[in-house]
Amino acid sequence: MIAKPASASFTEMNEYVLPQHANALGTVFGGQIMAWVDLCGAICAQRHSGLFAVTAFVDDLKFVGPIEVGQVAHIRGRVTATFRTSMELEIIVEGEDARTGRRWPCVSAFLTFVAVEPSTKKPVPVPALLLDTPDAKATQAAGEKRREERLKKS
Amino acid sequence: MIAKPASASFTEMNEYVLPQHANALGTVFGGQIMAWVDLCGAICAQRHSGLFAVTAFVDDLKFVGPIEVGQVAHIRGRVTATFRTSMELEIIVEGEDARTGRRWPCVSAFLTFVAVEPSTKKPVPVPALLLDTPDAKATQAAGEKRREERLKKS
Amino acid sequence: MIAKPASASFTEMNEYVLPQHANALGTVFGGQIMAWVDLCGAICAQRHSGLFAVTAFVDDLKFVGPIEVGQVAHIRGRVTATFRTSMELEIIVEGEDARTGRRWPCVSAFLTFVAVEPSTKKPVPVPALLLDTPDAKATQAAGEKRREERLKKS
Amino acid sequence: MIAKPASASFTEMNEYVLPQHANALGTVFGGQIMAWVDLCGAICAQRHSGLFAVTAFVDDLKFVGPIEVGQVAHIRGRVTATFRTSMELEIIVEGEDARTGRRWPCVSAFLTFVAVEPSTKKPVPVPALLLDTPDAKATQAAGEKRREERLKKS
Amino acid sequence: MIAKPASASFTEMNEYVLPQHANALGTVFGGQIMAWVDLCGAICAQRHSGLFAVTAFVDDLKFVGPIEVGQVAHIRGRVTATFRTSMELEIIVEGEDARTGRRWPCVSAFLTFVAVEPSTKKPVPVPALLLDTPDAKATQAAGEKRREERLKKS
Amino acid sequence: MIAKPASASFTEMNEYVLPQHANALGTVFGGQIMAWVDLCGAICAQRHSGLFAVTAFVDDLKFVGPIEVGQVAHIRGRVTATFRTSMELEIIVEGEDARTGRRWPCVSAFLTFVAVEPSTKKPVPVPALLLDTPDAKATQAAGEKRREERLKKS
Repeated sequence: MIAKPASASFTEMNEYVLPQHANALGTVFGGQIMAWVDLCGAICAQRHSGLFAVTAFVDDLKFVGPIEVGQVAHIRGRVTATFRTSMELEIIVEGEDARTGRRWPCVSAFLTFVAVEPSTKKPVPVPALLLDTPDAKATQAAGEKRREERLKKS
Repeated sequence: MIAKPASASFTEMNEYVLPQHANALGTVFGGQIMAWVDLCGAICAQRHSGLFAVTAFVDDLKFVGPIEVGQVAHIRGRVTATFRTSMELEIIVEGEDARTGRRWPCVSAFLTFVAVEPSTKKPVPVPALLLDTPDAKATQAAGEKRREERLKKS
Repeated sequence: MIAKPASASFTEMNEYVLPQHANALGTVFGGQIMAWVDLCGAICAQRHSGLFAVTAFVDDLKFVGPIEVGQVAHIRGRVTATFRTSMELEIIVEGEDARTGRRWPCVSAFLTFVAVEPSTKKPVPVPALLLDTPDAKATQAAGEKRREERLKKS
Repeated sequence: MIAKPASASFTEMNEYVLPQHANALGTVFGGQIMAWVDLCGAICAQRHSGLFAVTAFVDDLKFVGPIEVGQVAHIRGRVTATFRTSMELEIIVEGEDARTGRRWPCVSAFLTFVAVEPSTKKPVPVPALLLDTPDAKATQAAGEKRREERLKKS
Repeated sequence: MIAKPASASFTEMNEYVLPQHANALGTVFGGQIMAWVDLCGAICAQRHSGLFAVTAFVDDLKFVGPIEVGQVAHIRGRVTATFRTSMELEIIVEGEDARTGRRWPCVSAFLTFVAVEPSTKKPVPVPALLLDTPDAKATQAAGEKRREERLKKS
Repeated sequence: MIAKPASASFTEMNEYVLPQHANALGTVFGGQIMAWVDLCGAICAQRHSGLFAVTAFVDDLKFVGPIEVGQVAHIRGRVTATFRTSMELEIIVEGEDARTGRRWPCVSAFLTFVAVEPSTKKPVPVPALLLDTPDAKATQAAGEKRREERLKKS
């Protein structure tokens, strides 16, 4: 398998926030944002690997600001590191007031997806991340460190 | 109000197709795609106008290919023409198999949104489209022609 | 195949508007109405043709009035013209305040559905509209004109 | 308040069954049908009373046949009896294969709605059912009997 | 088949009420509560019978208090009586203000589910309720009485 | 404020898995499970604190097994540690085949919620976890350690 640049997996979503996404305070409820984060990760992981992929871990998901009904959830993701059968992705969610263009941080998270063969659901190898830039090298190294820490804990 | 380039309104959505979006044939049902087209238009219209905007017309919405569960609906929109209180937007939907990168045309449509003052819901003027490129001039002219034809009919 | 009267396809829907259908202004969001229009068309097209049918075009969809949470969306459709493998339907949406009986126009649209064989998704011939009344003759003629204009454009 | 004929409350819904309405067996799950029954009752009760109304009882709701994805749920309701601040409604659900026109019984139920003043949610009097036909007299009498039995039980 | 105690079927659900569950008055709409009641019954019936089961009857469903957005719907169910191929379940819904711990009655209902063989959807025998306590004997007897009354009516 | 035992926050949910919750492989999609985890956490956090609370962090969310359509997602949560204005919760999701009683691990996660004053959304102090058992002392200590590590990273 040929290594692939992070750019191959870039995924951007824009979700217009409706009352059906809101909690009792009129802002998007946390679980809805987590669902969008997971869907963005699923597209990203397929674009990189060319394979079906399922969520395995969520690390360091941090909520830093709310998004209200009538505003936009802007979600983007990319592969940050690859392992034998899994990929780490960084997903960033920003709130946007589409009328003023103002944007603010909402959520950041690292997700790990495992590539699987659809019928058996057994893990299968994924292409490596092409380490062609200082940024790619840095995200791969940081991803490997996060993985080690996670394995230590469990 | 200062005229704004089409690029200010560019909106891109990626929707992972789940069984909850499907019809009895396992493909996205037409109404779901129309809902995504409308939401993309709503973000686009707010980004251009800086105002609340509501759907007024849908012209020439054409379905040319299906999208299946497990594939991605890739939706993008931009302002193509502006009038006194309304904007015409072109929305393009493509199907994508995220594993192979294959893309195919699914829907194209022109939508007209009217900018409104939220409390009274009265129409309010929108910034003009900046006619700084041959493409912008061409889409403005084509939008004006579609509008004339529509006004003739009703 | 025997020609069928427009009455064979008459379809009426009544949808009670809940917060889950609303936009940030407390009225049904455009895409939800378009989804109901499409579902009404799908039932209508099957009742006329006796076949599976998928959305092909939406022409002249016009929003003329909002519907609020707690009110009713009243949707009705019928076949207005038939072609070899496709049908044109007119769908009318009215808002209704069920407590006072007041009704007002919300949306009107013409949709074209293509009859398909479920496994191959290939188009299949549909029964003609029975041209037994002046109204049926008029809607068939108008539908043919709309179709010509659409074909000219693409 | 002037008595009103049952016809003033007639409500008809047609719902195209999608995978989002299905259970693990590919038929509409019971709770979804009960939700449609309740929404039909809510429209019916408002059409009769001219007032907001909330569900108070469901009696004798009986499932007699399934509806599959791709088929249509045909729901209709009417007022069958009125009391001081409440109304009894009969709701009938049939399955329909829109392609063949075949229909079969799915659910029948009697629901009681209470009219309420929206801000206080206190019950308010409703117009009587106009007992102008043998059928109206019969349904009013049967409704009174069901109510007595219910009161006896609680 | 060995008789099973009611405790084997105990099912508890807690649903956080969001705007997507609300009616125009800001409280859970009746149909949504009925959907939760049915889902609780479905789990309960499977836990008792070890078989697929579908809703057959709803008796005596009574709404006694509303639940608002931001509060919790607390639903619990258990088998109260068994017949040859069917089971009666009692489902109780309470509202809860999770911040104060206050709880109030919302809905009570008796549902009957029939066990079915998934492919043929033919009824199949269910294990009896173990009548090992005065309470179990009492609920079985009351369930048999409700069943007789229902059979008399139809 | 008086310290509260972990038992005060115990929350149990049972969700019957329908096609509307599934991904293209017929199992619950990751984002849906994360939404249930978040809702369970929101109830738990309110039961402990007596206050509105919003999601702040998700740590160590691990997927270890899938749940299929027709099976049950069994979710339970409790407070494991408290800080000045925030609470750590452990949420455990198990899959269950309600017909056989078989259960298997699906997800485990630690979530942190911050208590907020609804109008200003400013953090407010929460009651401490009552450290009356060795288990409570151990979970408080482990939660404090996770918090330190998180603060070190950001």
